[in-house]
Amino acid sequence: MEKKRIVLAHGGGGVLSRELVEEIIVPSAGGSPSALPDAASVPGAEDFYFTTDSFVVKPLFFNGGDIGSLSVHGTVNDLAVSGAEPVAVSFSLIIEEGFEIDTLRRIVESAGRAAGESNVSIITGDTKVVARGEADQLFVNTAGIGICRHDMGNTGIKEGDCLLINGSIADHGIAVMSRRKGIDFDTEIKSDSAPVWPYVKALLDGGIDIHVMRDPTRGGMAASLVELSGDHGVTTELYEDSVPIRDEVRAACEMLGLDPLTVANEGKLLVYVAESDAEKALKILRRTKGGEGAEIIGRAVQRRAVSVFIKTSFGGERVVEMPYGEELPRIC
Amino acid sequence: MEKKRIVLAHGGGGVLSRELVEEIIVPSAGGSPSALPDAASVPGAEDFYFTTDSFVVKPLFFNGGDIGSLSVHGTVNDLAVSGAEPVAVSFSLIIEEGFEIDTLRRIVESAGRAAGESNVSIITGDTKVVARGEADQLFVNTAGIGICRHDMGNTGIKEGDCLLINGSIADHGIAVMSRRKGIDFDTEIKSDSAPVWPYVKALLDGGIDIHVMRDPTRGGMAASLVELSGDHGVTTELYEDSVPIRDEVRAACEMLGLDPLTVANEGKLLVYVAESDAEKALKILRRTKGGEGAEIIGRAVQRRAVSVFIKTSFGGERVVEMPYGEELPRIC
Repeated sequence: MEKKRIVLAHGGGGVLSRELVEEIIVPSAGGSPSALPDAASVPGAEDFYFTTDSFVVKPLFFNGGDIGSLSVHGTVNDLAVSGAEPVAVSFSLIIEEGFEIDTLRRIVESAGRAAGESNVSIITGDTKVVARGEADQLFVNTAGIGICRHDMGNTGIKEGDCLLINGSIADHGIAVMSRRKGIDFDTEIKSDSAPVWPYVKALLDGGIDIHVMRDPTRGGMAASLVELSGDHGVTTELYEDSVPIRDEVRAACEMLGLDPLTVANEGKLLVYVAESDAEKALKILRRTKGGEGAEIIGRAVQRRAVSVFIKTSFGGERVVEMPYGEELPRIC
Repeated sequence: MEKKRIVLAHGGGGVLSRELVEEIIVPSAGGSPSALPDAASVPGAEDFYFTTDSFVVKPLFFNGGDIGSLSVHGTVNDLAVSGAEPVAVSFSLIIEEGFEIDTLRRIVESAGRAAGESNVSIITGDTKVVARGEADQLFVNTAGIGICRHDMGNTGIKEGDCLLINGSIADHGIAVMSRRKGIDFDTEIKSDSAPVWPYVKALLDGGIDIHVMRDPTRGGMAASLVELSGDHGVTTELYEDSVPIRDEVRAACEMLGLDPLTVANEGKLLVYVAESDAEKALKILRRTKGGEGAEIIGRAVQRRAVSVFIKTSFGGERVVEMPYGEELPRIC
């Protein structure tokens, strides 16, 4: 940790985020570097999983969602990718003095609706107010509790495993950015913010043995796959032609100079399964509402020097790197 | 709800806080007005309690604690007063760009120590960074899970019940304020920030049938007692001479024009028990480390027009009102 002060990149979900958490936060809190996963099993009640996320997205409203719905989806998805069915969430607000109460109402209603659609109850909350200029409008924190339905503690990514995704990438990040920058694309780009538990449940109900899952939020698919591949001692090979990206999102990324692999998603699920399960899993994902665009996008291969590489349309190979810092600040 | 915009007083733990939560937040989130208590039982796992709090205390360090330890104590205490033994907490940070990493380390270490002393593990967390000027240094959110050890769902405050407290009031609020205002009192006033579960456990182990508990934080003892008395259909009579207040805290309150009954505490426990249990409960509290100053400070009487009144040293009576708004902003 070379830096002496926090920079925006520490919140970007990339290399610096990981350094901050692993070198400063977790050891200071008294844990071991692997002790703060997205969701953790509760001591003495190992069937229950617990997770938390704060949300600072700017602007508060974007096409396809707002900070209220996002804060519920973000937390229930951290549970879902841990194999836990979400059951309850908390909802905590830090509000800047002067914030409009009607706007607050819209945001809380949106959170309530997202909770209903995610089959969870908001059962506890808190409200703090700070003076004007001491916070930027509104920050939200949610925490969530889920019940384990699929224990992945003893599984992991194995060589030969196939990697699936339930739909197109980079929609959320581009929807927020376009709103923020006032960019008017020809087609409306909509955030994918949504609960992913229905996909997980469908796979489990279909008898798929899920090896590992992740929701590629901050840092995008690149950050998730580099982290997972490193942790499980494999290399992931991505098929460029198979990674679903909407044309308008690809165009926006080009315009903004962003790699879509590093842009945040809020309703996407990455799943590693055995090759023998892959086609069946794909069918199940495609049959699940919202998953019509699911694809098999890669596979785990023997560990190489790089964690993730992409096979380009022209047969070449390109290394996929963990983004260093914050390409898109305050995206979630 | 007459106001159109959020004012500081909405975060003060008084009348306006309650209005905001009951009229806007809870109905918008899809719950009933009684649906967001400090800690709530988890659907499908009723033995587990869940709670959350955000912390915006200013300054970050004060005599007797800091935002790290406070954020752990605040959350484990919400569980404890619900009769739940705290088992795990989350720890989520919103950091302003430019914040010193060494200071961050000190705060997280303090949270880790507080967790250790509270017998809980920090098992999950999150870190967000916002640009300079978009937050005031650092905000923390914690959520917590506890296991129910004493179900108070069917009990309540009964006429004749005695009210006890485990020590002196208003220490936390005055410790923070004096630091903030740069006031130099002759004696150092120290926050009481500490876990209250040890007191609850001692009472339960001693066979005390606790009717109702509360930790009088924002809005102080006045807010807690007015709320509890109203909810349980009794009036609480306080004995002015028995309410423990340190001389230096009383002097500071007079200097700052504050009623100590409305000043925040972070390690205090209000307990209603049957009169027949009161003396035994008092002995137990006084035997518990830190509880040497415990007192029986009042009793529940037949419901009158006012929820709480105080019998003054001179035999008179004074109404104790719910504070309207924010006497002390950013105290927790």
